[in-house]
Amino acid sequence: MSAERKLYEGKAKILYPTDDRDILLAYYKDDATAFNAAKRGRIQGKGEMNCTIASHLFRLLESRGISTHFIDCPTPDRMRVRAVRIIPLEVVVRNIAAGSLCKQTGLPLGRVLKSPLVEFFYKNDELGDPLLTRERLLMMELATLEQVERLRELALQINQILSDFFATCEITLVDFKLEFGFDGRGNIILADEISPDTCRLWDRTQTDRDRRVMDKDRFRQDLGNVEAAYEQVLQRVLSVVG
Amino acid sequence: MSAERKLYEGKAKILYPTDDRDILLAYYKDDATAFNAAKRGRIQGKGEMNCTIASHLFRLLESRGISTHFIDCPTPDRMRVRAVRIIPLEVVVRNIAAGSLCKQTGLPLGRVLKSPLVEFFYKNDELGDPLLTRERLLMMELATLEQVERLRELALQINQILSDFFATCEITLVDFKLEFGFDGRGNIILADEISPDTCRLWDRTQTDRDRRVMDKDRFRQDLGNVEAAYEQVLQRVLSVVG
Repeated sequence: MSAERKLYEGKAKILYPTDDRDILLAYYKDDATAFNAAKRGRIQGKGEMNCTIASHLFRLLESRGISTHFIDCPTPDRMRVRAVRIIPLEVVVRNIAAGSLCKQTGLPLGRVLKSPLVEFFYKNDELGDPLLTRERLLMMELATLEQVERLRELALQINQILSDFFATCEITLVDFKLEFGFDGRGNIILADEISPDTCRLWDRTQTDRDRRVMDKDRFRQDLGNVEAAYEQVLQRVLSVVG
Repeated sequence: MSAERKLYEGKAKILYPTDDRDILLAYYKDDATAFNAAKRGRIQGKGEMNCTIASHLFRLLESRGISTHFIDCPTPDRMRVRAVRIIPLEVVVRNIAAGSLCKQTGLPLGRVLKSPLVEFFYKNDELGDPLLTRERLLMMELATLEQVERLRELALQINQILSDFFATCEITLVDFKLEFGFDGRGNIILADEISPDTCRLWDRTQTDRDRRVMDKDRFRQDLGNVEAAYEQVLQRVLSVVG
């Protein structure tokens, strides 16, 4: 796992090749970024915590029939995953208004949406990951209409499974970002990670607007106790999956 | 028309009430703004030129069965219009990639789109007039699905009529922004203005990327000869409607 062998380094993970070309090793970093990497920092132990949380959530989804890139975790901060061709879309599912949705619509933080909102953003740091309308997405040929429909359907299924799971952890799944890719057979499977870096998670045992935050918003908004919040998510996930 | 009697002052127009509550007087200003009013200036004679251009285009559209708020022009920079309840949407039609579409998608300037793209932006200066997906628009209850479909249909009809008209002026209609409102009977009618302030217009007799620009991009991008470009649009419109 020398620097020379890196296949790809993202903001939160590094991908390494393995002897099997269909399998990659994802190393989860402690590095934290926000606002398209304008803000940078480090969350101690995040790599291990996120890798462990994600592994349990991927297993849960697999058990419910959702195909993911997850294979196993050889160490707590490393995940073996199936190699996929990533679709350059960030698929966001929202149950409650927060973040950019509030900034761009004026909806108040915490407004419960009548039904889950599935949104697509162009995964392009240079352009600032802009919101895509369906028409723009199709015009840019980022996916076909059939693929968009499939992504939407998968995103809603995943939302249902994860929302139910987090509820048993006394956590509200506010919103989250997914990435998908094509496996060797051309099937769309879930990739990337699912963790407090990619989900907004609110503690149901807290009513205070800031204290309830258990996700990267603690880092984004300098709310403090970032590591403790991630650790709390991990402990609740572990207590439920047993 | 004293300051006290202003009903509404926008960036390019002032609306005054008249003795008839169903009729307003729109005064077209020489003031020019860009980038959500971050850039401000003045285009000498713009008020008269835009008012005159818009009046001819509204008449053209009316003659083709499109209902507009236009009544007549008592003076060259004043337009009598029917009072409407404005729908807080900027309806943008694009034939060729330019402006924010390029910035947000990476599409190259000048790329001819396979078919006209109709887009909706939230008319809200405070939020920076953000792009709306159909789902956001409906969630925010800015219009009903039926109204969105009607706006889209009207926008495409208007695009066809204006594109054909400008072609006879040796001008390419690149893109443009429309605003609609409800009249007293609840019908959706075209409001606001259609002018080089609200359209991107490229001179077909010029091939140079900057020289061809006949619209507010000359002001936005400091290309110079702003007044001359607006005057040229006016003269070509007049020569065709003659």
